[in-house]
Amino acid sequence: MADNVKIGIITSSDRASSGVYEDISGPAIKSYFSERISNETEWEYRLIPDDYDQLVATMRELSDLKCAIICTTGGTGPAKRDVTPEATEEVCEKILPGFGEAMRKVSLQYVPTAILSRQTAGILKNSLIINLPGKPKAIAECLDGVIDAIPFCIDLIEGPRLEFRERFGKAFRPGEKSKK
Amino acid sequence: MADNVKIGIITSSDRASSGVYEDISGPAIKSYFSERISNETEWEYRLIPDDYDQLVATMRELSDLKCAIICTTGGTGPAKRDVTPEATEEVCEKILPGFGEAMRKVSLQYVPTAILSRQTAGILKNSLIINLPGKPKAIAECLDGVIDAIPFCIDLIEGPRLEFRERFGKAFRPGEKSKK
Amino acid sequence: MADNVKIGIITSSDRASSGVYEDISGPAIKSYFSERISNETEWEYRLIPDDYDQLVATMRELSDLKCAIICTTGGTGPAKRDVTPEATEEVCEKILPGFGEAMRKVSLQYVPTAILSRQTAGILKNSLIINLPGKPKAIAECLDGVIDAIPFCIDLIEGPRLEFRERFGKAFRPGEKSKK
Repeated sequence: MADNVKIGIITSSDRASSGVYEDISGPAIKSYFSERISNETEWEYRLIPDDYDQLVATMRELSDLKCAIICTTGGTGPAKRDVTPEATEEVCEKILPGFGEAMRKVSLQYVPTAILSRQTAGILKNSLIINLPGKPKAIAECLDGVIDAIPFCIDLIEGPRLEFRERFGKAFRPGEKSKK
Repeated sequence: MADNVKIGIITSSDRASSGVYEDISGPAIKSYFSERISNETEWEYRLIPDDYDQLVATMRELSDLKCAIICTTGGTGPAKRDVTPEATEEVCEKILPGFGEAMRKVSLQYVPTAILSRQTAGILKNSLIINLPGKPKAIAECLDGVIDAIPFCIDLIEGPRLEFRERFGKAFRPGEKSKK
Repeated sequence: MADNVKIGIITSSDRASSGVYEDISGPAIKSYFSERISNETEWEYRLIPDDYDQLVATMRELSDLKCAIICTTGGTGPAKRDVTPEATEEVCEKILPGFGEAMRKVSLQYVPTAILSRQTAGILKNSLIINLPGKPKAIAECLDGVIDAIPFCIDLIEGPRLEFRERFGKAFRPGEKSKK
């Protein structure tokens, strides 16, 4: 039987957190993983402003709460208030540059400004932190570009064993037979 | 009417700066942007040796002079005197790894040694700094790989609104209709 | 006549170094270069645990022994004991991000988990240090993705002039005629 898994979602947005508009990015991340992952899932959701200290504190909190995956949305561009990658680098013990490369590569198929994204990913204790873009469409595109590497990554950091729903094929693990 | 824009060019070369040969890289950057950008443009041009301190000081000077774009040429390889990326990382508040990735990807279509380039880009106040290679042909190839992301990047760092000349199509901005 | 060259190989593996199994990764690196490089070659081989301090000390030792190329194998993943990229960044004066990008790109053709590799490369004095994966098949794939940039890189850091065996074509050097 598959392990339970806890997934953390951090929406970083000055406007959404102050009620100017509703956060649609956080829910987009939740529906992406709900549709894909067959494990029983618990969610931790935080809506905060684009603030470095709150980002740092919230990533640490969700890691302490044993989230295997922590996805941020927003704050990865070149503007002054964009500080999500900096906060991610601050808290992570290891940075995984392949995630940023892969996500920019996917996004470049849709918009030339994907070059401007500074999104990255890294490991904090037993959590994989992934920076996602702000727009729901771009969130799904980026996750499609990296999702097949996530279950084995979580194995390597001693998290729960993730499984995909039948229609997505077996989660890839090197050395295990695929039945996709 | 389009804003005026100021573009800075820093040629970093021991030999060109000491008069051993003429700098052709700086002028190649100028003609690339002149041909592409339709805004009224002012230029700041500096020819300096491959020297870390002078690179740092010159990037800061051109940013203080309100250059929206600052292009360097030279000094991005693995040799001892190649220190342009280090100087760029020193002055920039944010590094944009997508630029280096995109430029290496383009150059790899021409030479396998493109892997050796450490070129990067970043934000210093209201300036986008981009490291370009030394050879005019490679300069144009690299700029072709990133030019479509530049106008929106300059918007995000609160610089002037850049426009392309008619034949290059409308400068891309997410959410704006393209008429290319 | 071609220069002699010294190549260093560092296998970083807790289990191989404690005798649990035999190291097959180090020998795979040796046969790759033996087959490709026509220079007279001397080898320095070290088998050590996944230990940061020993990695740092061993890379420095092999650089002091004038190895033009130092390849590591193992320790580039997201797990706690994976510290090879950290040790590489500690000793290197310059990091060459194009190597990691190119190697991940090649490996992604074979396994989606290539995204998880944090492998990098850099320059320590007159040595090019390259992090390779642990599996012999992946070692050859990654080296295929970067080998054509290595001879010119070694020229730039004032190492010996590397040549390829006839059947691989002339080693690429910008500005030199190819006779491939």
